[in-house]
Amino acid sequence: MKSIAIDMDNVIVDVESQYIKWYQQKFGVTVCKEDLMGKPETEGFPNKEAVYNFLLTPGFFRTATAIPGALDAVQTLAASFQVYIVSAAMEFPQSLIEKYEWLQQHLPAISWRNIIFCGDKSIIATDYMIDDHVKNLDTFSGKGVLFTAAHNINIDRHTRLNDWNEVLDWFAKETM
Amino acid sequence: MKSIAIDMDNVIVDVESQYIKWYQQKFGVTVCKEDLMGKPETEGFPNKEAVYNFLLTPGFFRTATAIPGALDAVQTLAASFQVYIVSAAMEFPQSLIEKYEWLQQHLPAISWRNIIFCGDKSIIATDYMIDDHVKNLDTFSGKGVLFTAAHNINIDRHTRLNDWNEVLDWFAKETM
Repeated sequence: MKSIAIDMDNVIVDVESQYIKWYQQKFGVTVCKEDLMGKPETEGFPNKEAVYNFLLTPGFFRTATAIPGALDAVQTLAASFQVYIVSAAMEFPQSLIEKYEWLQQHLPAISWRNIIFCGDKSIIATDYMIDDHVKNLDTFSGKGVLFTAAHNINIDRHTRLNDWNEVLDWFAKETM
Repeated sequence: MKSIAIDMDNVIVDVESQYIKWYQQKFGVTVCKEDLMGKPETEGFPNKEAVYNFLLTPGFFRTATAIPGALDAVQTLAASFQVYIVSAAMEFPQSLIEKYEWLQQHLPAISWRNIIFCGDKSIIATDYMIDDHVKNLDTFSGKGVLFTAAHNINIDRHTRLNDWNEVLDWFAKETM
Protein backbone atom coordinates (compact mmCIF):
# COMPACT_ATOMS: atom_id res chain seq x y z
CA MET A 1 0.00 0.00 0.00
CA LYS A 2 1.50 3.36 -1.00
CA SER A 3 1.79 6.15 1.54
CA ILE A 4 0.68 9.81 1.54
CA ALA A 5 1.91 12.56 3.87
CA ILE A 6 -0.95 15.03 4.28
CA ASP A 7 -0.29 18.48 5.75
CA MET A 8 -2.70 20.03 8.26
CA ASP A 9 -2.65 23.84 8.03
CA ASN A 10 -4.37 25.11 4.87
CA VAL A 11 -4.83 21.54 3.63
CA ILE A 12 -7.02 19.84 6.24
CA VAL A 13 -7.43 22.78 8.63
CA ASP A 14 -8.76 26.13 7.39
CA VAL A 15 -6.09 28.37 8.90
CA GLU A 16 -6.72 31.17 6.39
CA SER A 17 -10.32 31.51 7.55
CA GLN A 18 -9.17 31.34 11.17
CA TYR A 19 -6.74 34.26 10.56
CA ILE A 20 -9.56 36.27 9.02
CA LYS A 21 -12.00 35.43 11.83
CA TRP A 22 -9.56 36.23 14.64
CA TYR A 23 -8.45 39.43 12.90
CA GLN A 24 -12.05 40.56 12.59
CA GLN A 25 -12.71 39.77 16.26
CA LYS A 26 -9.56 41.56 17.49
CA PHE A 27 -9.51 44.63 15.24
CA GLY A 28 -13.04 44.85 13.82
CA VAL A 29 -11.47 44.80 10.36
CA THR A 30 -12.63 42.31 7.74
CA VAL A 31 -9.83 41.12 5.47
CA CYS A 32 -11.02 39.25 2.37
CA LYS A 33 -9.42 36.13 0.92
CA GLU A 34 -8.72 38.21 -2.19
CA ASP A 35 -6.46 40.47 -0.08
CA LEU A 36 -4.28 37.45 0.77
CA MET A 37 -3.72 36.20 -2.78
CA GLY A 38 -0.12 35.69 -3.82
CA LYS A 39 1.37 37.06 -0.58
CA PRO A 40 3.21 35.25 2.24
CA GLU A 41 0.64 34.08 4.78
CA THR A 42 0.53 37.05 7.15
CA GLU A 43 1.40 39.79 4.63
CA GLY A 44 -2.12 40.49 3.46
CA PHE A 45 -3.20 41.76 6.89
CA PRO A 46 -2.67 45.41 7.92
CA ASN A 47 -1.02 44.27 11.19
CA LYS A 48 1.22 41.32 10.28
CA GLU A 49 2.70 40.92 13.76
CA ALA A 50 -0.72 40.50 15.30
CA VAL A 51 -1.43 37.66 12.89
CA TYR A 52 1.89 35.97 13.73
CA ASN A 53 0.98 36.28 17.40
CA PHE A 54 -2.29 34.42 16.76
CA LEU A 55 -0.10 31.38 16.01
CA LEU A 56 1.31 31.62 19.55
CA THR A 57 -2.09 32.09 21.18
CA PRO A 58 -3.83 29.16 22.94
CA GLY A 59 -6.96 28.10 21.07
CA PHE A 60 -5.94 29.30 17.62
CA PHE A 61 -5.24 25.86 16.16
CA ARG A 62 -7.70 23.97 18.37
CA THR A 63 -10.77 25.94 17.27
CA ALA A 64 -10.05 26.20 13.55
CA THR A 65 -12.54 24.55 11.23
CA ALA A 66 -11.86 21.93 8.57
CA ILE A 67 -11.29 22.75 4.91
CA PRO A 68 -14.49 21.82 3.00
CA GLY A 69 -14.43 18.15 2.02
CA ALA A 70 -11.13 17.41 3.79
CA LEU A 71 -12.36 15.09 6.52
CA ASP A 72 -14.36 12.79 4.25
CA ALA A 73 -11.62 12.82 1.62
CA VAL A 74 -8.86 11.86 4.07
CA GLN A 75 -10.93 8.91 5.18
CA THR A 76 -11.59 7.93 1.57
CA LEU A 77 -7.86 8.05 0.81
CA ALA A 78 -7.11 6.01 3.93
CA ALA A 79 -8.99 3.07 2.37
CA SER A 80 -6.46 2.84 -0.48
CA PHE A 81 -3.31 4.45 0.93
CA GLN A 82 -1.33 4.48 4.14
CA VAL A 83 -2.21 8.03 5.25
CA TYR A 84 0.13 10.01 7.52
CA ILE A 85 -0.79 13.41 8.89
CA VAL A 86 2.46 15.40 8.80
CA SER A 87 2.30 18.85 10.33
CA ALA A 88 5.06 21.41 10.92
CA ALA A 89 3.94 22.05 14.50
CA MET A 90 7.29 22.41 16.22
CA GLU A 91 7.74 26.18 15.65
CA PHE A 92 4.68 26.78 17.86
CA PRO A 93 4.96 24.26 20.71
CA GLN A 94 1.59 25.08 22.26
CA SER A 95 0.10 23.87 18.97
CA LEU A 96 1.36 20.31 19.59
CA ILE A 97 -1.42 19.26 21.94
CA GLU A 98 -3.98 21.44 20.13
CA LYS A 99 -3.26 19.76 16.81
CA TYR A 100 -3.33 16.34 18.43
CA GLU A 101 -6.72 17.08 20.02
CA TRP A 102 -8.02 18.53 16.75
CA LEU A 103 -7.20 15.28 14.98
CA GLN A 104 -8.77 13.23 17.76
CA GLN A 105 -11.98 15.23 17.37
CA HIS A 106 -12.18 15.57 13.60
CA LEU A 107 -10.34 12.50 12.31
CA PRO A 108 -10.61 9.91 15.09
CA ALA A 109 -10.01 7.05 12.65
CA ILE A 110 -6.40 8.23 12.12
CA SER A 111 -4.22 6.29 14.55
CA TRP A 112 -1.60 8.02 16.68
CA ARG A 113 0.87 5.80 14.80
CA ASN A 114 0.15 7.84 11.66
CA ILE A 115 0.62 11.34 13.09
CA ILE A 116 3.91 13.21 12.75
CA PHE A 117 4.67 16.66 14.13
CA CYS A 118 7.92 18.04 12.84
CA GLY A 119 9.99 21.08 12.11
CA ASP A 120 11.10 20.83 8.51
CA LYS A 121 9.75 17.96 6.40
CA SER A 122 12.92 17.11 4.50
CA ILE A 123 13.36 13.66 6.10
CA ILE A 124 9.78 12.50 5.43
CA ALA A 125 9.80 9.64 2.95
CA THR A 126 6.29 8.77 1.81
CA ASP A 127 5.27 8.00 -1.77
CA TYR A 128 3.12 11.14 -2.00
CA MET A 129 2.87 14.47 -0.19
CA ILE A 130 -0.04 16.95 -0.20
CA ASP A 131 1.11 20.35 1.05
CA ASP A 132 0.43 24.06 0.55
CA HIS A 133 4.07 25.05 1.14
CA VAL A 134 6.37 24.75 -1.82
CA LYS A 135 9.42 24.54 0.49
CA ASN A 136 8.15 21.16 1.71
CA LEU A 137 7.55 19.85 -1.80
CA ASP A 138 10.89 21.13 -3.12
CA THR A 139 12.86 18.82 -0.80
CA PHE A 140 10.46 15.86 -1.20
CA SER A 141 11.67 12.82 -3.15
CA GLY A 142 8.24 11.28 -3.85
CA LYS A 143 5.36 12.71 -5.88
CA GLY A 144 4.30 16.03 -4.38
CA VAL A 145 1.10 17.95 -5.04
CA LEU A 146 0.53 21.59 -4.15
CA PHE A 147 -2.80 22.20 -2.45
CA THR A 148 -4.04 25.65 -3.39
CA ALA A 149 -3.90 28.31 -0.69
CA ALA A 150 -4.01 32.09 -1.11
CA HIS A 151 -0.27 32.42 -0.48
CA ASN A 152 0.78 29.92 -3.19
CA ILE A 153 -1.40 30.90 -6.17
CA ASN A 154 1.55 32.16 -8.22
CA ILE A 155 3.68 29.02 -7.81
CA ASP A 156 3.77 26.83 -10.91
CA ARG A 157 6.51 24.26 -10.34
CA HIS A 158 4.38 21.49 -8.79
CA THR A 159 1.16 19.68 -9.72
CA ARG A 160 -1.59 21.90 -8.34
CA LEU A 161 -4.87 20.61 -6.87
CA ASN A 162 -7.42 23.25 -5.98
CA ASP A 163 -9.73 21.42 -3.60
CA TRP A 164 -10.42 18.01 -2.10
CA ASN A 165 -12.57 16.89 -5.05
CA GLU A 166 -9.57 17.43 -7.30
CA VAL A 167 -7.37 15.54 -4.80
CA LEU A 168 -9.70 12.52 -4.86
CA ASP A 169 -9.89 12.55 -8.67
CA TRP A 170 -6.10 12.79 -8.97
CA PHE A 171 -5.42 9.95 -6.52
CA ALA A 172 -8.13 7.80 -8.14
CA LYS A 173 -6.06 7.94 -11.34
CA GLU A 174 -2.90 7.04 -9.37
CA THR A 175 -4.52 3.83 -8.15
CA MET A 176 -5.57 2.69 -11.64
CA MET B 1 26.15 16.58 5.31
CA LYS B 2 24.67 13.20 6.25
CA SER B 3 21.75 13.00 8.64
CA ILE B 4 21.13 11.03 11.85
CA ALA B 5 17.76 10.38 13.51
CA ILE B 6 18.40 10.10 17.25
CA ASP B 7 15.73 8.62 19.52
CA MET B 8 14.98 10.18 22.93
CA ASP B 9 13.74 7.52 25.40
CA ASN B 10 16.54 5.20 26.55
CA VAL B 11 18.97 6.84 24.11
CA ILE B 12 19.18 10.49 25.20
CA VAL B 13 16.72 10.34 28.11
CA ASP B 14 17.21 7.82 30.93
CA VAL B 15 13.67 6.43 31.03
CA GLU B 16 14.79 3.16 32.64
CA SER B 17 16.14 5.01 35.66
CA GLN B 18 12.98 7.15 35.77
CA TYR B 19 10.82 3.98 35.88
CA ILE B 20 12.93 2.65 38.75
CA LYS B 21 12.87 5.96 40.64
CA TRP B 22 9.10 6.46 40.31
CA TYR B 23 8.43 2.82 41.19
CA GLN B 24 10.52 3.17 44.35
CA GLN B 25 8.70 6.39 45.27
CA LYS B 26 5.23 4.93 44.66
CA PHE B 27 5.63 1.40 46.07
CA GLY B 28 8.76 1.57 48.22
CA VAL B 29 10.15 -1.30 46.16
CA THR B 30 13.56 -1.02 44.54
CA VAL B 31 13.77 -2.79 41.20
CA CYS B 32 17.33 -3.25 39.89
CA LYS B 33 18.43 -2.78 36.30
CA GLU B 34 19.36 -6.48 36.34
CA ASP B 35 15.68 -7.32 36.90
CA LEU B 36 14.80 -5.57 33.61
CA MET B 37 17.32 -7.35 31.41
CA GLY B 38 15.95 -9.03 28.31
CA LYS B 39 12.31 -8.25 29.10
CA PRO B 40 9.85 -5.84 27.41
CA GLU B 41 10.18 -2.45 29.10
CA THR B 42 7.54 -2.74 31.82
CA GLU B 43 7.72 -6.52 32.37
CA GLY B 44 10.51 -6.49 34.93
CA PHE B 45 8.38 -4.62 37.47
CA PRO B 46 6.03 -6.48 39.85
CA ASN B 47 3.15 -4.14 38.88
CA LYS B 48 3.41 -3.64 35.11
CA GLU B 49 0.23 -1.58 34.79
CA ALA B 50 1.50 0.96 37.29
CA VAL B 51 4.62 1.44 35.19
CA TYR B 52 2.57 1.90 32.03
CA ASN B 53 0.50 4.49 33.89
CA PHE B 54 3.70 6.44 34.69
CA LEU B 55 3.91 7.11 30.94
CA LEU B 56 0.51 8.83 31.12
CA THR B 57 1.38 10.86 34.22
CA PRO B 58 2.33 14.56 33.94
CA GLY B 59 5.98 15.11 34.85
CA PHE B 60 7.28 11.64 33.99
CA PHE B 61 9.07 12.63 30.80
CA ARG B 62 9.80 16.22 31.82
CA THR B 63 11.79 15.32 34.95
CA ALA B 64 13.78 12.38 33.59
CA THR B 65 17.56 12.78 33.53
CA ALA B 66 19.88 12.43 30.56
CA ILE B 67 21.73 9.22 29.71
CA PRO B 68 25.40 9.70 30.73
CA GLY B 69 27.36 11.39 27.96
CA ALA B 70 24.33 11.87 25.70
CA LEU B 71 24.06 15.66 25.73
CA ASP B 72 27.71 16.35 24.93
CA ALA B 73 27.79 13.57 22.34
CA VAL B 74 24.70 14.84 20.49
CA GLN B 75 26.31 18.25 20.24
CA THR B 76 29.55 16.67 19.01
CA LEU B 77 27.67 14.75 16.32
CA ALA B 78 25.80 17.91 15.31
CA ALA B 79 29.11 19.43 14.19
CA SER B 80 29.55 16.75 11.49
CA PHE B 81 26.01 15.53 10.81
CA GLN B 82 22.53 16.95 10.38
CA VAL B 83 21.06 15.72 13.68
CA TYR B 84 17.31 15.12 14.03
CA ILE B 85 15.72 14.19 17.34
CA VAL B 86 13.02 11.66 16.41
CA SER B 87 10.82 10.53 19.28
CA ALA B 88 7.75 8.28 19.27
CA ALA B 89 5.77 10.69 21.46
CA MET B 90 2.34 10.38 19.90
CA GLU B 91 1.09 7.41 21.97
CA PHE B 92 1.29 9.61 25.08
CA PRO B 93 0.07 13.05 23.99
CA GLN B 94 0.85 14.78 27.28
CA SER B 95 4.47 13.89 26.58
CA LEU B 96 4.54 16.14 23.51
CA ILE B 97 5.08 19.40 25.36
CA GLU B 98 7.15 17.71 28.08
CA LYS B 99 9.57 16.28 25.52
CA TYR B 100 9.74 19.63 23.72
CA GLU B 101 10.53 21.43 26.98
CA TRP B 102 13.08 18.76 27.95
CA LEU B 103 14.93 19.37 24.70
CA GLN B 104 14.75 23.15 25.16
CA GLN B 105 16.34 22.75 28.60
CA HIS B 106 18.93 20.07 27.91
CA LEU B 107 19.75 20.50 24.21
CA PRO B 108 18.95 24.14 23.45
CA ALA B 109 21.27 24.13 20.43
CA ILE B 110 18.93 21.72 18.61
CA SER B 111 16.58 23.82 16.47
CA TRP B 112 12.84 23.18 16.44
CA ARG B 113 13.37 22.46 12.73
CA ASN B 114 15.24 19.30 13.72
CA ILE B 115 12.70 17.84 16.15
CA ILE B 116 10.17 15.21 15.05
CA PHE B 117 7.51 13.65 17.26
CA CYS B 118 5.83 10.70 15.59
CA GLY B 119 3.95 7.50 16.01
CA ASP B 120 5.79 4.85 14.08
CA LYS B 121 9.12 5.77 12.47
CA SER B 122 8.72 3.90 9.20
CA ILE B 123 8.60 7.05 7.02
CA ILE B 124 11.73 8.63 8.51
CA ALA B 125 14.46 8.80 5.87
CA THR B 126 17.77 9.85 7.39
CA ASP B 127 21.15 8.31 6.57
CA TYR B 128 21.53 6.88 10.09
CA MET B 129 19.25 6.05 13.00
CA ILE B 130 20.20 5.50 16.66
CA ASP B 131 17.40 3.73 18.52
CA ASP B 132 16.84 1.25 21.32
CA HIS B 133 13.77 -0.30 19.66
CA VAL B 134 14.44 -2.93 17.05
CA LYS B 135 11.00 -2.34 15.47
CA ASN B 136 12.18 1.13 14.41
CA LEU B 137 15.44 -0.17 12.97
CA ASP B 138 13.78 -3.10 11.17
CA THR B 139 11.78 -0.74 8.91
CA PHE B 140 14.63 1.76 8.45
CA SER B 141 16.29 1.97 5.04
CA GLY B 142 19.51 3.72 6.17
CA LYS B 143 22.21 2.47 8.53
CA GLY B 144 20.65 1.72 11.91
CA VAL B 145 22.45 1.18 15.20
CA LEU B 146 20.88 -0.36 18.28
CA PHE B 147 21.60 1.59 21.46
CA THR B 148 21.79 -0.83 24.35
CA ALA B 149 18.89 -0.79 26.81
CA ALA B 150 17.87 -3.47 29.29
CA HIS B 151 14.95 -4.59 27.14
CA ASN B 152 17.05 -5.18 23.99
CA ILE B 153 20.10 -7.04 25.29
CA ASN B 154 19.19 -10.31 23.56
CA ILE B 155 18.70 -8.76 20.10
CA ASP B 156 21.55 -9.46 17.70
CA ARG B 157 20.35 -8.40 14.24
CA HIS B 158 21.64 -4.80 14.28
CA THR B 159 24.96 -3.11 15.02
CA ARG B 160 24.96 -2.62 18.78
CA LEU B 161 26.51 0.36 20.57
CA ASN B 162 26.54 0.18 24.35
CA ASP B 163 27.04 3.81 25.36
CA TRP B 164 27.69 7.26 23.96
CA ASN B 165 31.47 6.78 23.85
CA GLU B 166 30.92 3.84 21.52
CA VAL B 167 28.50 5.95 19.46
CA LEU B 168 31.09 8.70 19.00
CA ASP B 169 33.82 6.19 18.09
CA TRP B 170 31.53 4.47 15.57
CA PHE B 171 30.47 7.71 13.88
CA ALA B 172 34.06 8.99 13.85
CA LYS B 173 34.88 6.00 11.61
CA GLU B 174 31.86 6.76 9.41
CA THR B 175 33.23 10.25 8.67
CA MET B 176 36.70 9.00 7.66
